[in-house]
Amino acid sequence: MSDASDDLAIPPGFRASGVRAGIKPSGGLDMAVLVADRECSAAGTFTTNRVAAASVHWDRALVPSSSIRAVVINAGNANAATGQLGLDNARATAAGAAAVLGCRPDQVLVASTGVIGHQLPMPRVEAGLRAAIDAATADAAGFRDASRAILTTDTRPKVVSRREVIHGRAVHLLGLAKGAAMIGPKMATMLGFLLTDAHVAPADLQRILSGAVEDSFNCISVEGHMSTNDTVLILAGGEPEGEGGPLVGAPLVEFAVLVREACIDLARMIPDDGEGATHLITIDVEGAWTRDDARAIARSVADSALVKTAIHGADPNWGRIVSAAGYAGVPFEERELSLWLNGIPLYRDGAPLPFADAEVSANLRDNRATHIRLVLAHGEESVRFWTCDLTAEYIRLNADYTT
Amino acid sequence: MSDASDDLAIPPGFRASGVRAGIKPSGGLDMAVLVADRECSAAGTFTTNRVAAASVHWDRALVPSSSIRAVVINAGNANAATGQLGLDNARATAAGAAAVLGCRPDQVLVASTGVIGHQLPMPRVEAGLRAAIDAATADAAGFRDASRAILTTDTRPKVVSRREVIHGRAVHLLGLAKGAAMIGPKMATMLGFLLTDAHVAPADLQRILSGAVEDSFNCISVEGHMSTNDTVLILAGGEPEGEGGPLVGAPLVEFAVLVREACIDLARMIPDDGEGATHLITIDVEGAWTRDDARAIARSVADSALVKTAIHGADPNWGRIVSAAGYAGVPFEERELSLWLNGIPLYRDGAPLPFADAEVSANLRDNRATHIRLVLAHGEESVRFWTCDLTAEYIRLNADYTT
Repeated sequence: MSDASDDLAIPPGFRASGVRAGIKPSGGLDMAVLVADRECSAAGTFTTNRVAAASVHWDRALVPSSSIRAVVINAGNANAATGQLGLDNARATAAGAAAVLGCRPDQVLVASTGVIGHQLPMPRVEAGLRAAIDAATADAAGFRDASRAILTTDTRPKVVSRREVIHGRAVHLLGLAKGAAMIGPKMATMLGFLLTDAHVAPADLQRILSGAVEDSFNCISVEGHMSTNDTVLILAGGEPEGEGGPLVGAPLVEFAVLVREACIDLARMIPDDGEGATHLITIDVEGAWTRDDARAIARSVADSALVKTAIHGADPNWGRIVSAAGYAGVPFEERELSLWLNGIPLYRDGAPLPFADAEVSANLRDNRATHIRLVLAHGEESVRFWTCDLTAEYIRLNADYTT
Repeated sequence: MSDASDDLAIPPGFRASGVRAGIKPSGGLDMAVLVADRECSAAGTFTTNRVAAASVHWDRALVPSSSIRAVVINAGNANAATGQLGLDNARATAAGAAAVLGCRPDQVLVASTGVIGHQLPMPRVEAGLRAAIDAATADAAGFRDASRAILTTDTRPKVVSRREVIHGRAVHLLGLAKGAAMIGPKMATMLGFLLTDAHVAPADLQRILSGAVEDSFNCISVEGHMSTNDTVLILAGGEPEGEGGPLVGAPLVEFAVLVREACIDLARMIPDDGEGATHLITIDVEGAWTRDDARAIARSVADSALVKTAIHGADPNWGRIVSAAGYAGVPFEERELSLWLNGIPLYRDGAPLPFADAEVSANLRDNRATHIRLVLAHGEESVRFWTCDLTAEYIRLNADYTT
């Protein structure tokens, strides 16, 4: 069950908090910890940007793992493009948390988001993480604070929680994410954190997470700019004793479905809260030869400023959509392409269809949810992708971010 | 010599005009013809978009050619995504001009720009092209009118002209272009037309044009959306008699340099007049293993909405530049990358340098010309790329284009 009320399905065995460490100039919540009572299986997926944050370098070397105890997340500073000192600071953050928790530094994962190219203010980080670990609680308030402390320009926290009975036992899954801008993951993603009390082997956990990310965080964009910090982590803290070992077979598949659905729910919250967004745009590409082809077309449409401004302006200028499909690098003939916009057929087998401009325009204006459906007369593969429109508010937010 | 005054270096043997055919709702100039007195060598480069305009399909089948007599260009309607009827209308446009000129339809090239997915209003097109051919003159006024009739949301015409003595004979080169938006050529370009009185064989002309386009129209973007209509054509009308045949050897190389320089001058006018632009951004990428690598990095930076909004806001948020370089698909290590912004070093060998925020911000605010220099410690290849910033005015222009 997806849940935004306060009866979060919190997995037993985890605590969380969000505190003010003084990293954000605004003075808001800017440091979160997720603490596991025992050693967890952990898996992660990361940005493929060649300029990767120090936190990404640190975590990538550690997962998959069978012994993770905590994740420390700061907002307000990306600790990216910061050279050797940045790497040293990421390691010192993990070591600082490990000292408080009484574990090894390589049992602590870290994540950062915020402005690129500034060094972390380490005295504040170290004081903040001690305060955060002290404050961590197993109740909803702690996880709500954590979900707020990882945000930057997001207008609202992004939380999902689910409880399912798998193999006769209740499994809880809680997920947190942040987004807003610099969102264009490719084989990567934004910040997302999933906690579960299922007992899953690290290699299975990594495979399940990677598959879920392909269909969720790798199918969204805001403006297509791939971040240096994209990170999704999952910690599975199920008890190794009892139950006959980690999940296998059909129960493992049930768990994978649970993770996939949670990832999709979290991922679509990101363009829905994209900077300045007034429309959440769902793009279905069907009938492609391969899923990669379908995704390339969807991404090309999603990243077109002309498509995004047309949707923003409720302008039924559908030529921008088919032309964006045309330069995606996927071979097709025009006569193989058809387009529907909010269910209205506009282009069939490479030729325009008559339609009422005013009707389509009103439809776009009156619905925040926009649906673009592109059908190729090729194969059987399809993809669903989410993005948002491009507005003057996005420009305003981004023309003056650091200064 | 580049020239924006009224002593255009018009190549003898050509006439031009621009007229009102009633295709643009505004009632402005919307149809141009370029007419050659004799059969010309002609070459062209075209969009690689899978959804290509009918004019692109028509021209692509005809060039290189040794017998082109005219080019008919309309603005206000792209004749793209228009199916078989669109192809028939492009052919009818060429045939209509051929009937007036007394030549074959396959001696007439066509080009279109404007809204996608609408059928050409053929009675207006046919009346317009007759009026345009009647009005064509060999003086500057005709070419000035043509340069205005091919525009859409451009705020000013884009014209270059040069006169050089090659092989003891004066050679004239005149170029016209339009741009403004939907500018993201890849192995392709926007509308550009070059006329010369040099005598050049068709195959040489094609090779020279293709090379020049690689360094000019293929090195610009406004928002990275590849058009369905990108077309650059060159007509060379030099007399076959006298002079001992077409240019070869060193004179042909001199001619190629002339074409390349004219293409670069025209191409950079396009982002300089990009929709809503307040900065012309020149991106130099140096030290890459290959020129394709350098261009991929430049394009990734040029197409980043976050980079473009930062420049617009005079925000020295340089992390957006290096992170865009990082997802260009070019393998490199962070420690191999350095960045200068308007000559100020900000990032050296993968680590941030101290700088005065206020100074860099003032520098960006006070200069329309912005220079991004990225240096990789790799090879010897480099590229120069031009783009513009992204402003609220771009959003306003594109949120309400067809309606």
